[in-house]
Amino acid sequence: MHMGKESDFNEWYLDIVEKANLSDKRYPIKGMNVWTPYGWNIMRNIDHFIRRELDATGHGEVYFPLLIPETEFKKEKDHIKGFDSEVYWVTHAGLNELDVRLVVRPTSETAMYSMFSLWVRSHTDLPLKIYQIVNTFRYETKQTRPFIRVREIHFFESHTCHVSEEDAQRQVEEDFEILGNIMKELCIPYSLLVRTEWDKFPGAYYTVGLDTAMPNGRMLQIGSIHHYRTNFSVPYEITYEDADGEHKHVHQTTYGMSERLVGAMIGVHGDDKGLILPPPVAPIQAVIIPILSKGNTDAVMEKAKKVKNDLEAAGLRVKLDDRDERPGSKFFDWEIKGVPLRLELGMRDIENDSVTFVRRDNGVKGTASIPDIAPAVRLILEAIRSDMYGKAWERQKGCVETITSLTNIPERTLRFGWCGSEECGHRFEDENELKILGTPYIPEEFDGRCIICGEPTKKVAYASRSM
Amino acid sequence: MHMGKESDFNEWYLDIVEKANLSDKRYPIKGMNVWTPYGWNIMRNIDHFIRRELDATGHGEVYFPLLIPETEFKKEKDHIKGFDSEVYWVTHAGLNELDVRLVVRPTSETAMYSMFSLWVRSHTDLPLKIYQIVNTFRYETKQTRPFIRVREIHFFESHTCHVSEEDAQRQVEEDFEILGNIMKELCIPYSLLVRTEWDKFPGAYYTVGLDTAMPNGRMLQIGSIHHYRTNFSVPYEITYEDADGEHKHVHQTTYGMSERLVGAMIGVHGDDKGLILPPPVAPIQAVIIPILSKGNTDAVMEKAKKVKNDLEAAGLRVKLDDRDERPGSKFFDWEIKGVPLRLELGMRDIENDSVTFVRRDNGVKGTASIPDIAPAVRLILEAIRSDMYGKAWERQKGCVETITSLTNIPERTLRFGWCGSEECGHRFEDENELKILGTPYIPEEFDGRCIICGEPTKKVAYASRSM
Repeated sequence: MHMGKESDFNEWYLDIVEKANLSDKRYPIKGMNVWTPYGWNIMRNIDHFIRRELDATGHGEVYFPLLIPETEFKKEKDHIKGFDSEVYWVTHAGLNELDVRLVVRPTSETAMYSMFSLWVRSHTDLPLKIYQIVNTFRYETKQTRPFIRVREIHFFESHTCHVSEEDAQRQVEEDFEILGNIMKELCIPYSLLVRTEWDKFPGAYYTVGLDTAMPNGRMLQIGSIHHYRTNFSVPYEITYEDADGEHKHVHQTTYGMSERLVGAMIGVHGDDKGLILPPPVAPIQAVIIPILSKGNTDAVMEKAKKVKNDLEAAGLRVKLDDRDERPGSKFFDWEIKGVPLRLELGMRDIENDSVTFVRRDNGVKGTASIPDIAPAVRLILEAIRSDMYGKAWERQKGCVETITSLTNIPERTLRFGWCGSEECGHRFEDENELKILGTPYIPEEFDGRCIICGEPTKKVAYASRSM
Repeated sequence: MHMGKESDFNEWYLDIVEKANLSDKRYPIKGMNVWTPYGWNIMRNIDHFIRRELDATGHGEVYFPLLIPETEFKKEKDHIKGFDSEVYWVTHAGLNELDVRLVVRPTSETAMYSMFSLWVRSHTDLPLKIYQIVNTFRYETKQTRPFIRVREIHFFESHTCHVSEEDAQRQVEEDFEILGNIMKELCIPYSLLVRTEWDKFPGAYYTVGLDTAMPNGRMLQIGSIHHYRTNFSVPYEITYEDADGEHKHVHQTTYGMSERLVGAMIGVHGDDKGLILPPPVAPIQAVIIPILSKGNTDAVMEKAKKVKNDLEAAGLRVKLDDRDERPGSKFFDWEIKGVPLRLELGMRDIENDSVTFVRRDNGVKGTASIPDIAPAVRLILEAIRSDMYGKAWERQKGCVETITSLTNIPERTLRFGWCGSEECGHRFEDENELKILGTPYIPEEFDGRCIICGEPTKKVAYASRSM
């Protein structure tokens, strides 16, 4: 890499996306990039974990159309106001102008909820829990960046309907469990912050933002969970008949995370040598490099193939790099691509019936016996995952600094007292070019003063510069 | 079902899609339907087989943007002419009119090939083999029908680049192998017919259509394979340097199949009771129905749960229907949904330590021992798959009738002599309201006369009414 991760995160990030060949940004529309096989394979593995968790919690996978008639889109007023300036419009089809313009989905509430009003009839139809994995579209005017700010966004969205506000609240809690299970595989730590009133999702009762600390001290939003109460079910007329024959509006929630998860993994785990991928999502979990010298080629290659077959038979994703190049240059290539484990196999290793392994995450070397290679590699990969997750959580916690004054604001995520008034909130943001991320979803003990008005407060808030 | 499959295929088809709840056509845009969990689960299983086969043959999965600038789209002249009247146009973003209009992908040649010209440099970059599973969009003006003729189409497309026409031809042959492996799982038979010059894909050198016979005697195109020669690589400037340093244009192929595979499965396998799903793609492969009577409830339910756990532990997709309803009404529901195997479990079964099974495809009943339930069910499911595929192939072959005159044309797929001239071809189509499907890719012995001009010919062609 040309740039250091710590010294210039932005340059480092763009460099690594290109060198590891995760996506190609030369497509002729700005902010719409091509997913190359390596990058898409990572996303496929993430999607796999999302499906596993959502299927296991009784969500049905659906697919709703990409295009939404303008008339449907405009039913919830706050919602359309939030999206008016950033949607793509289909106005013509074939050689005709359309009677009703069509929005290219920026999110699917307005596509789904008129159908929900047909699907939900009785309390026995509830809870209704569905999700889809699709692309959404935003006409982003800020500077774009692969996986982090793009105009075509790969994401999942789950949507649920419930008999009551409390039942919807229980869904929010289940979403946190799902989140924890997915993040354990991706080794991405997160904060749960209730967004401010002026920053919540258009139409939401409240929004919990899921934020991950980047190496530059800023927080990256990787997803969000919304409780809608009846804000959408009233305009979209989603009602059910309860056990007593009374008709009521459903309470709704949504949960979504996007390809930013890939961006977060790059930022959280990478180093100056390149990407470091968590084993559960790595397209190649272990790469075998034969160390050939005169006269030993056949013996080494034969052993290398055996190791590969044993690992593949155990369900591991393995690559045998038999290119005609120096081992050092192969090491370099696979380090850039973030392969979690390297297995080196030379004549001395064969004599000991073992391989030399090198962990990508911390550089630790060791040997593993070839007869037990599959369980050994499995254990090492699990140790890598666990260590990566632990280290990432430490950094997430370490990036926060509690401040009591607004002079010499550090380049960190800030924690401070806030009286909770919109006036103080806006002043804080405008005068310091900062963004309030919100207040902790899980309450934190605090006893201090509002950093703006100085009134005593038990409320604490978080803020950082925008990514 | 209200309608018989044989007596009115179209009514029967629409009825079954609705009753089995495969998709919901009440979405407010005609021809853009909502995939419900059951229907989408079938499609997910099909996509799984497509990925398995394409990954195994060295295709990398990619994702190219949905939107294509008009300037890129218009580079290949025949291609744009073929799509001009049926694409959706994005003309506005946010509150602005776009400088360059964007096409919503009708297929991805024009999105991909300018990138291919950057990716391919040397003969060592070839063959380039990629695929994607995405939705495409056509402004369909004919009457729409779920899975068969829709405006948003779920499909896969593979695209390859080769050093020579011969190497591209070998890819076409590999595509047939992939096709065979996928169809074996879906139990869908197919004909390989080289489309006429006036019906081939816009820009193709030749097109092989993949056609499946529907119960009404007509052929449904479920996919196609195209050899492009250099027809796209010239306008898109996709060239490579060969071993001698000479620059040459690549030869290209594509292969695609769509959600019509779902429509074909419905049509090929269903009966008057409902859907019949091939076991490899069925969301539920076996349903367990407890037959309860007074005093035995606990014993039966306990055994039913054991059977379910054993089958799930063996990786089978199973449902235990413990709803508070009569067994007969449960049978009816799962027959509509096409579950391949029903397992009934009553007190007498428990005494024999066995279950009664009923095959959905042919109604055959039998018993299977509970201690060996997983291997037994696996064998039965494989027998169902194999029988369904065999029977479907017989019907595919049986639907063809060779004709020598155009009086009293039967409602079948027609096979007849054709001199090969465009003039006779057009006359045949126009005067009889028929569509020539093409000539067999694998040559067939024939010695007769052109059905139009009467000239002696060794060429044979196929035709049917349009679906």
